[in-house]
Amino acid sequence: MVGVFIGVGVGPGDPELLTFKVAKVLNTVDIICVPKSDINKPSMALGMIREVIEERTKPVEIVELVFPMTKDEVNNRKLWMENAATVAEKVKKGDVAFITLGDPMLYSTFRYLYECVKKNYPEIKLEIIPGVTSITAAAASAKLPLAEKDEIVTIIPSDLDPTHLEDLARHADSLVFMKYAFRIKELAPILLKAGFTDNSTVALVKRCTRLEEKVLVGKLCEVNNWDITEDYFSVAIVKKDQVPIHWKQNNGHTNRCCCK
Amino acid sequence: MVGVFIGVGVGPGDPELLTFKVAKVLNTVDIICVPKSDINKPSMALGMIREVIEERTKPVEIVELVFPMTKDEVNNRKLWMENAATVAEKVKKGDVAFITLGDPMLYSTFRYLYECVKKNYPEIKLEIIPGVTSITAAAASAKLPLAEKDEIVTIIPSDLDPTHLEDLARHADSLVFMKYAFRIKELAPILLKAGFTDNSTVALVKRCTRLEEKVLVGKLCEVNNWDITEDYFSVAIVKKDQVPIHWKQNNGHTNRCCCK
Repeated sequence: MVGVFIGVGVGPGDPELLTFKVAKVLNTVDIICVPKSDINKPSMALGMIREVIEERTKPVEIVELVFPMTKDEVNNRKLWMENAATVAEKVKKGDVAFITLGDPMLYSTFRYLYECVKKNYPEIKLEIIPGVTSITAAAASAKLPLAEKDEIVTIIPSDLDPTHLEDLARHADSLVFMKYAFRIKELAPILLKAGFTDNSTVALVKRCTRLEEKVLVGKLCEVNNWDITEDYFSVAIVKKDQVPIHWKQNNGHTNRCCCK
Repeated sequence: MVGVFIGVGVGPGDPELLTFKVAKVLNTVDIICVPKSDINKPSMALGMIREVIEERTKPVEIVELVFPMTKDEVNNRKLWMENAATVAEKVKKGDVAFITLGDPMLYSTFRYLYECVKKNYPEIKLEIIPGVTSITAAAASAKLPLAEKDEIVTIIPSDLDPTHLEDLARHADSLVFMKYAFRIKELAPILLKAGFTDNSTVALVKRCTRLEEKVLVGKLCEVNNWDITEDYFSVAIVKKDQVPIHWKQNNGHTNRCCCK
């Protein structure tokens, strides 16, 4: 093996949220692997690095790897193995970057490939470059601080059963919902049983930092009136304490329902 | 007011983990506010943006704001108010950036200042630029994926009482300890009561992505043998499932205790 296999986080959507380190890697590697959920659909991650690639002086080989989002674990593993074999083949030619939305270590396609490569080709050297996650990017877009001081944050990436969610909610100060965030209306009654109140602040950010970004901020009692469409790339942040201490002294800030 | 007040996340430590967006803001603003815990100590965040500032064609005013880390809430508020007044004064002259380690919305000094400014100077326009957090950067340095699929991540920034920690640990797949991560030896027995096992994987990353970074990866039963020094800028990640499914098939990866 002559090359290194590098997992690269390209951030939440805005190409300006790429780091210098990522740009440097994408400028120098020989091959860039691009994950796709469907061979016929464009890659979101590839669109985000287009400008960086265009500035290269040396040509680069783009390799599309398909990772269909299915529940068929046997077939999924077969595909990861095939993709890992492709990576192993490419690493013989030079350095290989694998781009992934957000961060490679948090709910990323890279994770699966990384483990297949690690297991089956232990001779390949691996590197990981972190990226900005949609979690803090959503907080920035909504201008809603995720946590301060001793506050506990729990990240929930799936459609949990109500009992489990209630237990989690009871012990956290801030909850972050991913993938199923658009179901916040159904989640709200469970949160109310767990110490959240009608006045708890909620932010729902759809496709954060992208051109089509949509931000909703309001109180938990208001989410029922929100017009929410199903979208996998949505993040919801719910804060148990309705508003920070300082805001409580200022009524002007307690009723922030906006849509930008 | 002529300017905008912009909270800027400069990332975990490596200046290469700055985003293009942050560099653009720091290149164009008129004033850069730098948080310090002590007027006589150098600012870590300022050190990280030095190269970006040196490339500016237009001079910039650097304003040091002191935020001592004390438990004296009354005095703290007084200081935040003074700092907010400084920001309000500076915004009359032009755009003001406030740099913060990691991300402005997650356990950041910016949070306090932001609220003081929002409350007392509602006419000031606020913007927030997210940054790479030490959480995913630590996972990258340790090469330990934080979470995949349905896995729940809980971030604990403080020294909790054992009962609360046990409850939190019971409901999470991955735990991230911040600020008190160096106390992982004391935390381990509590985690064992909550479904974590001797084989659960632990990563302790001190000062991640900085030149003095130190990474320890091993099993929960091994932390007692680790040589750990007290350090506020340490992050510990503990994964309930000892190793991912794929690794289980390969004994070569289950005994990864290293110190880079």
